[in-house]
Amino acid sequence: MAAQLEVAVVGAGYWGPNLARNFRASEDWKLAAICDLDLERAQRVADGVGGAPVTRDLGEILDDPAIDAVAIATPARTHHPIVLAALESGKHVIVEKPLADTRARGIEMVDRARRNGLVLMADHTYCYTPAVLKIKELVQEGALGEILFVDSVRINLGLIQPDVDVFWDLAPHDLSIMDFVLPEGLDAASVSAHGSDPLHTGRACIGYLAMPLTGGGIAHVHVNWLSPTKIRQMVIGGTKRTLVWDDLNPQQRLSVYDRGVDLALHSKGTADSHAANVSYRLGDTWAPALPEREALAGVAGEFAAAIRERRSPRTSGESGLRVLAVLEAAQASLRNHGSPQPVESGVVAEAVTA
Amino acid sequence: MAAQLEVAVVGAGYWGPNLARNFRASEDWKLAAICDLDLERAQRVADGVGGAPVTRDLGEILDDPAIDAVAIATPARTHHPIVLAALESGKHVIVEKPLADTRARGIEMVDRARRNGLVLMADHTYCYTPAVLKIKELVQEGALGEILFVDSVRINLGLIQPDVDVFWDLAPHDLSIMDFVLPEGLDAASVSAHGSDPLHTGRACIGYLAMPLTGGGIAHVHVNWLSPTKIRQMVIGGTKRTLVWDDLNPQQRLSVYDRGVDLALHSKGTADSHAANVSYRLGDTWAPALPEREALAGVAGEFAAAIRERRSPRTSGESGLRVLAVLEAAQASLRNHGSPQPVESGVVAEAVTA
Amino acid sequence: MAAQLEVAVVGAGYWGPNLARNFRASEDWKLAAICDLDLERAQRVADGVGGAPVTRDLGEILDDPAIDAVAIATPARTHHPIVLAALESGKHVIVEKPLADTRARGIEMVDRARRNGLVLMADHTYCYTPAVLKIKELVQEGALGEILFVDSVRINLGLIQPDVDVFWDLAPHDLSIMDFVLPEGLDAASVSAHGSDPLHTGRACIGYLAMPLTGGGIAHVHVNWLSPTKIRQMVIGGTKRTLVWDDLNPQQRLSVYDRGVDLALHSKGTADSHAANVSYRLGDTWAPALPEREALAGVAGEFAAAIRERRSPRTSGESGLRVLAVLEAAQASLRNHGSPQPVESGVVAEAVTA
Amino acid sequence: MAAQLEVAVVGAGYWGPNLARNFRASEDWKLAAICDLDLERAQRVADGVGGAPVTRDLGEILDDPAIDAVAIATPARTHHPIVLAALESGKHVIVEKPLADTRARGIEMVDRARRNGLVLMADHTYCYTPAVLKIKELVQEGALGEILFVDSVRINLGLIQPDVDVFWDLAPHDLSIMDFVLPEGLDAASVSAHGSDPLHTGRACIGYLAMPLTGGGIAHVHVNWLSPTKIRQMVIGGTKRTLVWDDLNPQQRLSVYDRGVDLALHSKGTADSHAANVSYRLGDTWAPALPEREALAGVAGEFAAAIRERRSPRTSGESGLRVLAVLEAAQASLRNHGSPQPVESGVVAEAVTA
Repeated sequence: MAAQLEVAVVGAGYWGPNLARNFRASEDWKLAAICDLDLERAQRVADGVGGAPVTRDLGEILDDPAIDAVAIATPARTHHPIVLAALESGKHVIVEKPLADTRARGIEMVDRARRNGLVLMADHTYCYTPAVLKIKELVQEGALGEILFVDSVRINLGLIQPDVDVFWDLAPHDLSIMDFVLPEGLDAASVSAHGSDPLHTGRACIGYLAMPLTGGGIAHVHVNWLSPTKIRQMVIGGTKRTLVWDDLNPQQRLSVYDRGVDLALHSKGTADSHAANVSYRLGDTWAPALPEREALAGVAGEFAAAIRERRSPRTSGESGLRVLAVLEAAQASLRNHGSPQPVESGVVAEAVTA
Repeated sequence: MAAQLEVAVVGAGYWGPNLARNFRASEDWKLAAICDLDLERAQRVADGVGGAPVTRDLGEILDDPAIDAVAIATPARTHHPIVLAALESGKHVIVEKPLADTRARGIEMVDRARRNGLVLMADHTYCYTPAVLKIKELVQEGALGEILFVDSVRINLGLIQPDVDVFWDLAPHDLSIMDFVLPEGLDAASVSAHGSDPLHTGRACIGYLAMPLTGGGIAHVHVNWLSPTKIRQMVIGGTKRTLVWDDLNPQQRLSVYDRGVDLALHSKGTADSHAANVSYRLGDTWAPALPEREALAGVAGEFAAAIRERRSPRTSGESGLRVLAVLEAAQASLRNHGSPQPVESGVVAEAVTA
Repeated sequence: MAAQLEVAVVGAGYWGPNLARNFRASEDWKLAAICDLDLERAQRVADGVGGAPVTRDLGEILDDPAIDAVAIATPARTHHPIVLAALESGKHVIVEKPLADTRARGIEMVDRARRNGLVLMADHTYCYTPAVLKIKELVQEGALGEILFVDSVRINLGLIQPDVDVFWDLAPHDLSIMDFVLPEGLDAASVSAHGSDPLHTGRACIGYLAMPLTGGGIAHVHVNWLSPTKIRQMVIGGTKRTLVWDDLNPQQRLSVYDRGVDLALHSKGTADSHAANVSYRLGDTWAPALPEREALAGVAGEFAAAIRERRSPRTSGESGLRVLAVLEAAQASLRNHGSPQPVESGVVAEAVTA
Repeated sequence: MAAQLEVAVVGAGYWGPNLARNFRASEDWKLAAICDLDLERAQRVADGVGGAPVTRDLGEILDDPAIDAVAIATPARTHHPIVLAALESGKHVIVEKPLADTRARGIEMVDRARRNGLVLMADHTYCYTPAVLKIKELVQEGALGEILFVDSVRINLGLIQPDVDVFWDLAPHDLSIMDFVLPEGLDAASVSAHGSDPLHTGRACIGYLAMPLTGGGIAHVHVNWLSPTKIRQMVIGGTKRTLVWDDLNPQQRLSVYDRGVDLALHSKGTADSHAANVSYRLGDTWAPALPEREALAGVAGEFAAAIRERRSPRTSGESGLRVLAVLEAAQASLRNHGSPQPVESGVVAEAVTA
């Protein structure tokens, strides 16, 4: 086995303990330190994983030549300065979603990592769950055919966040998963966002995103902090089969339906004759077995592999940028009462020339 | 008991037999005739309800002074001429959804009924189900508090219609129910529609409607002909409680959740301090018992009562117009790539002056 | 096509109308008459199927040489005299479950049919549902391997019957299905029955049947009239796969789980070493598509085919006897506080010698 | 706050870590030591809770006067000697289910604790879950009326145990819960057990227990290691309401149905007239909110409180004996092919005179 890489976890709040626990459990990694401005909080996390050095001084970590990488689990608005500092110190970086609080700052981060020859990975944890890995595999091998639509619902009685709306809080999950599993990635030319703040909290608590896909289909996301029931479901409809991922049904998370509409197109087919040639398939349903595996273990492994193989990780900084591009377009759409807004792309070229 | 009213059913296709059966079973009504251009089809419907006169000549029915009312279950594009002819012959009219194929034609129908002093009722059947009647009762008595959002999903592997898209086919259900149960009716100032026709059938097979409510909340509808699973679910979120109607769960169709977010507002509250004062209720869930009752029996009864009491029915022509207003705005939004479009209102005044 | 057979339906209560409707719709059959002591009730059934002759005189039907068969849907205690009379008149007979109210009477019926060369069919309707037909097919082709256990639950808030307990009311469904799908039929050497009548209605309202199968496994039935929730579920566990039939889940009635316990047996294996060699399969789940088809149409077709081909129907009088044998043993077990009681077999030989 | 009590956890296998974690987190307790013959295993558990002394010598713990209590999570066959030694050393004891591997040994333990004035508590963890505590409260306040039946299903693809059958492995959960929530405790005069070992593992893998309750109702338990689906459901039917506990539905674990059968009894009522006077209630369903709380925290608290208040704990050694009495009667029934066997009671008197 290769020598272990050393990693420091920065941020000991909600997500940091999970990162610490998984790096500790990984054969690829040595958990070198936990850093938080609140030293007691850092110590509690360290205790919970059987001990690790703690510090409140980020500089100490960045100056430590033994440390190869940092995992950043601080609030989104702090990602930009911390990530840039880490990259300048020669550390590989993995960073919580969303990558940054603006796309421009995200571009700067991606650009810096590229120029410094370092790995910048987005911690899109869901992409490493057995369910999403299986979805990607099914899409790639063509089991669904061409993708017609993606409909994602992520609703719950959720904590109203002090600094971000429901789009920035929840939709990065849906968007990063779509970016991961779709053959072309998250390939939306424009986005329309409809939000509502009926409790007057100062930010949208209910949100809908509609995104025409360049291939002709549509992607849609429904996020909601005010739902009394919890739903986490994504439907991916294809020309051959349709997949339903019900993340809260441990007994059957994935179902692949061999049901759908078939169109027999004639060469002279007009729109009207199309309708006449519609038929239905009502075939079997199939629920692939999924291993029980913690997604963050896969995240830790992929981060190590990308560093060792000097390659881009499966959920790269660029994928984080594609998510930010949609979120920013959604913000613009919200300001424009739901009018569709273009989603920026061509991300790094811009940055380089900036 | 009052003397029975006489009704003729016009149109013996998909819905006509249900109307015929329910008028036949009703003590309020005598089923006087069944009319269809296809006389054999009319005869089959008549046989199925124990016999009734049949005809292919609408004029015969309209000229029969014994007939008080006609129930029209023909394709939407034929509603306008048939309804106007019936109203001119002094018949009360109940008509399938949608009321008409354009709002202008609907206005003409409503206006004519008003001027002739006749009942024009929209057959919004769902509004007479035990579930929807209970929802209306709960909303009216304030059990939910103020309405914050309505989210409706109606998806299924559905027949692709030769003449209408998924919005016109399915959304009238959701819209008519919202119009029925909301305190202000379907009170959306604008609508954004996002549709997709990924199979190139010539019409949208997947659709989303987003409608900001004038009270500050939002209503949203998701309709889909390409879903392998069948979902018919409406969530109505209120300041006090939230209701979930799952129409495909006969064991618990309605659930009222005493869960939600509470805001303790201070007089000097700013948006930021609001967030600080959020708290959560995680109370009991309650599922009211619902009688088993066929909705169309209630439709037949309400139609008779409105005629006898010379009043507007609970699902009036005007409610049908409010549905048409949203559908037309949605069409305009579709043509404008999802840009929000104003929903027309003030409906009959226009018509009268026209 | 062969000439139509003529059938009379005897009994116009709960089940008779369904029989009448299906014989009427069948190309194999001409519905020749409906017979009930309550002539008005017979007439209502006749009207509901578009007309048929009615009579209150069974003799009229039995004397009519044009009538080939009678379908008997009268109370269980009247089956014996009516069936014998019909068989003596040379009519083929299909009879509601249970075949008779005692096994001895059932034997006499089966014996008479055999001696007269007539078809005696048990109307075990469930056996002709798409789900049960598929289960039988899967069991027969070995998809489940050897059968290890069958567990059936049929509970509901049910009508407390005036004359029979919950075992005689509901368990014939479970038992006839087991008899139909199991490779050896319902092959239980003994039965233990546990019943309870906690409301003091005079008969068991809750019941459990445990039946060791001769192959080494076990079959169990739970029937209950006092359950507020409705469950109709049967699990059939095999050495290769396990099948779950959830009859109230129209979206996934059948699920075949490739999950189970594997035993690697060594030639010197002792009980203890067996346990050491246990391993688990956690494979995919598969839900076969099922056609939508009314079971009674299949019943009518099978009855006609058995008559024409001069063969025993798939749910023969003998299968009805096997159900009665279990029910009688269960009764004896109830009287003996749940002690296991032998299930009689070798049924017709007895009868013949009697 | 009272001074902390000191506890040692004996057994660092499957359950010991959970005990250690909860004692560590409790304000009532100081975790004084972890004892296991496998010292490395003990150390891993100690590390996982932030450190604690470890030993492989039970005597060291029993001789330590600072230690007030021991929590025993070793295999069932070792409970008897360890518990007796601990009680002789003056330690209070909590012990994993089942209390002992025979009822006679359990009686000796209970008797010894009583004579030495020490607390002997059965770790019936389920009884401290929010769901079971709420069930007990509802039964006690009469919300269900008189109990008519209890039906418990606990099935799963389970680990085939090397030393115990499915009854001893799983049924203690169901039995201890029934003992806890029923007004009279687990008050079964006899038990019939039906087991099956279709894979020839040397022990029953499928089991059913039927127990007539002295009040006239029935209790039934279904346990199964071979089920591909996981069900943990208990139904408690009462004269007023019926409760369904679905432990695997976090969104609605408890449902209280105001549905049932009402009997209007006349003074001259015979069995037949009873049936005539049956009517049905189809009332609302109510799902009480339950706090999210770890059951073992409640166990730790109750153990401390019982010691401090010198009282019997809510799940006492005697409750453990009542569970053993049923398990032993079930074993006898299994040996007798399912014949009902008497359940021993009057437990401690026996022991004292022995």
